[in-house]
Amino acid sequence: MKTEILYGFHPVYEALRAGRRTFHQITISKQPHSRRIERIRSAAESKKIRLREASPAKLQAIGGPVSHQGIIASVTAYPLADTADLLATVLSGTRSPFFLLLDHIVDPHNLGAIIRTGLCAGIDGVIIPKDRSAYPTPAVSRISAGALEYMRVAQVNNMVRFVRTLKDQNVWIVGLDQNAGQPIYGADLTGAVALVVGGEEKGIRPLVKKNCDLLTSIPQCGPVGSLNASVAAAIAMYESYRQRFTRNEV
Amino acid sequence: MKTEILYGFHPVYEALRAGRRTFHQITISKQPHSRRIERIRSAAESKKIRLREASPAKLQAIGGPVSHQGIIASVTAYPLADTADLLATVLSGTRSPFFLLLDHIVDPHNLGAIIRTGLCAGIDGVIIPKDRSAYPTPAVSRISAGALEYMRVAQVNNMVRFVRTLKDQNVWIVGLDQNAGQPIYGADLTGAVALVVGGEEKGIRPLVKKNCDLLTSIPQCGPVGSLNASVAAAIAMYESYRQRFTRNEV
Repeated sequence: MKTEILYGFHPVYEALRAGRRTFHQITISKQPHSRRIERIRSAAESKKIRLREASPAKLQAIGGPVSHQGIIASVTAYPLADTADLLATVLSGTRSPFFLLLDHIVDPHNLGAIIRTGLCAGIDGVIIPKDRSAYPTPAVSRISAGALEYMRVAQVNNMVRFVRTLKDQNVWIVGLDQNAGQPIYGADLTGAVALVVGGEEKGIRPLVKKNCDLLTSIPQCGPVGSLNASVAAAIAMYESYRQRFTRNEV
Repeated sequence: MKTEILYGFHPVYEALRAGRRTFHQITISKQPHSRRIERIRSAAESKKIRLREASPAKLQAIGGPVSHQGIIASVTAYPLADTADLLATVLSGTRSPFFLLLDHIVDPHNLGAIIRTGLCAGIDGVIIPKDRSAYPTPAVSRISAGALEYMRVAQVNNMVRFVRTLKDQNVWIVGLDQNAGQPIYGADLTGAVALVVGGEEKGIRPLVKKNCDLLTSIPQCGPVGSLNASVAAAIAMYESYRQRFTRNEV
């Protein structure tokens, strides 16, 4: 089975708490220990996970040129969710599902940032395409401050087909499009919703866009007028969260 | 006068458009030109700014290890705003001012991201402390996608004193505090408002917090529950923008 190297406090600590990955081994720095390293040590010991100490040079050799904060873990590959399971679990629940569809976000920083915010905003699942998309790597886990270890992320071969499946399940498909005439603040984002966010350069692809029930934009002022993709996603996710929160639906 | 080296398309292009810095010289890559480089060339020529071409190696030598996209400009130092001017201009206007006070944001990435979003959300001025704060460097201009070239940024020696000055001018001081009981969605963020965002590690300092008229939090769900500082700032700025937008005040 494929092994990944998680690094840094949050990815390792949150992966331990989330319990979705099997840990082969955790390696911590031999240097004077921070409180964070002690938290990792105690969590590892209580779960009977093999823990060893290594010199900073040795850690560097395992982790490579990454910011590992003296903490590295060898774990099983990222547990992708299955779209069918995702749909079944969520659609059978009592709460209205809130999905996030990323139509070719390619920058790992944006993917990590979006997942971090998404977990706070109550996103039930993130769907990414198989090709031309950032993937949930250890680097993305680090950027997400470990939120990736809890978030359900599924890959689809065909985003348009998945959008149609969601529509069949009465999920409302809302695309974020800077050119849309309908500002997001007049849009109803409660109930079963899938928010679609397009790639950094070109936005949502035409065929996906055509399948959206609603296209909506974030109003912007100023001479530059272009929000970063992860910030636009954050504002839209939180607008939905605000509407649910105001109606006591979260 | 101090000279700075701006690099990358957006900082150079937006600084040209904004017209707040004097350009000593622009250097572009000799390599086959992109459409972006052509836009810089034509803007520079129309403003009679000296433009020269250099080999990629030469550009690298001037710019150092930065992502310059074949575009480097030697310009005057970043034009900080004066707090007195900022207050006078804005408070005399017809529109309610919207200030952003950053109480020790130290990460340049966060400062750049906040300024980029702030310009879109209609922030009239960003106030940073003189010590222990990220500063509007060329790197921040790059991260802000050039938004820094338009934003008014002022430095203060004493943030508490500046907060009191704003209060004397009937500006409502709203602090973002994860532990506040009042969710931001019940708070009135219209009218003359200064939003206070604390540093990445410790949030707003106690004495600044004590001087806020209202402390408010962004509701969060999930097991990690900690938004990135620049994302939290974005959500709060856009909540104020939403309220103004809904009331036709923007």
